Amino acid sequence: MSKEQAEQVIALLRAAPSDPNATTAQARARMEEATSMLPVGDGVTVTEGISANGVTCDWIVPDGANEDRAILYLHGGAYCVGSRKTHRALAAELARVSDAPVLVADYGLAPENPYPEGIEDAVNAYQWLETEKNIPANMIGIAGDSAGGGLTMATLLMLRDREMGEPACGMVISPWVDMTCSAKSYETRRDRDPMIVPDNIQGSADLYLNGKDAESHLASPVFARLNGLPPLLIQVGTEEVLYDDAVRLAGRAVEAHIDVTLECWDGMFHVWHAFYSMLDEGQEAIAAMGQFYKDKIGR
Amino acid sequence: MSKEQAEQVIALLRAAPSDPNATTAQARARMEEATSMLPVGDGVTVTEGISANGVTCDWIVPDGANEDRAILYLHGGAYCVGSRKTHRALAAELARVSDAPVLVADYGLAPENPYPEGIEDAVNAYQWLETEKNIPANMIGIAGDSAGGGLTMATLLMLRDREMGEPACGMVISPWVDMTCSAKSYETRRDRDPMIVPDNIQGSADLYLNGKDAESHLASPVFARLNGLPPLLIQVGTEEVLYDDAVRLAGRAVEAHIDVTLECWDGMFHVWHAFYSMLDEGQEAIAAMGQFYKDKIGR
Repeated sequence: MSKEQAEQVIALLRAAPSDPNATTAQARARMEEATSMLPVGDGVTVTEGISANGVTCDWIVPDGANEDRAILYLHGGAYCVGSRKTHRALAAELARVSDAPVLVADYGLAPENPYPEGIEDAVNAYQWLETEKNIPANMIGIAGDSAGGGLTMATLLMLRDREMGEPACGMVISPWVDMTCSAKSYETRRDRDPMIVPDNIQGSADLYLNGKDAESHLASPVFARLNGLPPLLIQVGTEEVLYDDAVRLAGRAVEAHIDVTLECWDGMFHVWHAFYSMLDEGQEAIAAMGQFYKDKIGR
Repeated sequence: MSKEQAEQVIALLRAAPSDPNATTAQARARMEEATSMLPVGDGVTVTEGISANGVTCDWIVPDGANEDRAILYLHGGAYCVGSRKTHRALAAELARVSDAPVLVADYGLAPENPYPEGIEDAVNAYQWLETEKNIPANMIGIAGDSAGGGLTMATLLMLRDREMGEPACGMVISPWVDMTCSAKSYETRRDRDPMIVPDNIQGSADLYLNGKDAESHLASPVFARLNGLPPLLIQVGTEEVLYDDAVRLAGRAVEAHIDVTLECWDGMFHVWHAFYSMLDEGQEAIAAMGQFYKDKIGR
């Protein structure tokens, strides 16, 4: 069934392409609307709109979960759109399969809050888990998709550089980690990717960078020294213009002697996890994240 | 059935570990014997022991194949063992699925013929395809496994540097491309890999290098600038100590703006292709190579 499922989802995505002329407000509203149909599964309790060190978050706790652990989730949306609501279903499923609470952060978005403000927000939310929830670093995972994957890497780097403790692991889905938007896969996979329009993404990068260098290490972690980061799980679909971003990130992690697992999912597209309720591979990929997290916290 | 197949093959491999104290002659004889049980499929004609520019080769032609194209195959064996005979079954299957003749080269092995002699042999065999078989570069693929994967990369680099034409593609299976033997996966996957013993492989690297720098670009292509190479297919199993070699190579290829496809095969071990006659994933992986080659020659 799965190939048919994927074809259905891809057809759905192709039928509703993003509008390159939309304002940021329109693009945000569109994502909220489009994702509102994605069901949040049973077995979780969502506490909405808490303040974690000043960052508005949702706190998603699966039934029976032990609160000695948690995952910080950083949503995608090209650093300009998306929210704790648009990614609630995915985050709730991750919480469920990980047997861990998930903190979904509304980090600041561009253009109002350009680079590096979102990273500071993510670090603040992480710190709240340590100081307010008393969860030790080695029981915390950080995860994110797309721009949230880039933000996950940047957050791990900032935590390392500020000596704020080493989380148990990082887990990134279809990470966007190169703001130069120049990888070969932007050409070779342009027509295969039903989600990302290369021309649109460059505009988002410009809004995020706000004049800063596209090769800044925290904006584009493929240019950073990754030494000293915790184990990484990187998941990417073979049909993504961001395919090369994931492969390059994994290569850099190997160079830095990081314990890295790269999964290239055959036939999958950008953040297919979002459609886990109708796509087996989405469910399987989230399950793999949960297992990776459990392995790394050793529980 | 496939999981059971893999378990059977892995049990077989674990039951016959390589002897770290074997002489080179003993290790060579052992590989010849162990691989003699692998059947060469029907539908191919093998012409043995031809001289291709002074390099002894087998020429494997599938029934009905067009001889306007060919694949140069470079066998594995840690640069010290293996031959056109040990890898005949794999090469024949590659020929069959690619609808193309395959030239399997007995390049010089260490310690008698250390780095970079094997690369010169591979380049000579490649040149024979162009000059004696009149096959244009853009109809030639170069493929190899393990050390032969490293040699494939080195051959592509030497062809580039000498401006000898750009082949249609490179295809590497479980490539060994870092003679420093220092990647994290040597630790993290040590107990998961039924084929490669990290301590033994270091000895082979020493024999191959013969005192040369382990970071020499043609000995360890992960340190080379890969710019200007043709499209690459890189296949690796998740259970390999050489996992990081493949990921790092792919990352470097992305950095160099190469069209790269990295396939990480779940649960597979070092050069599982060799067991294609008893392992579905082996057959599938070789089929993927054939499809990749056909796509790149555009026929």
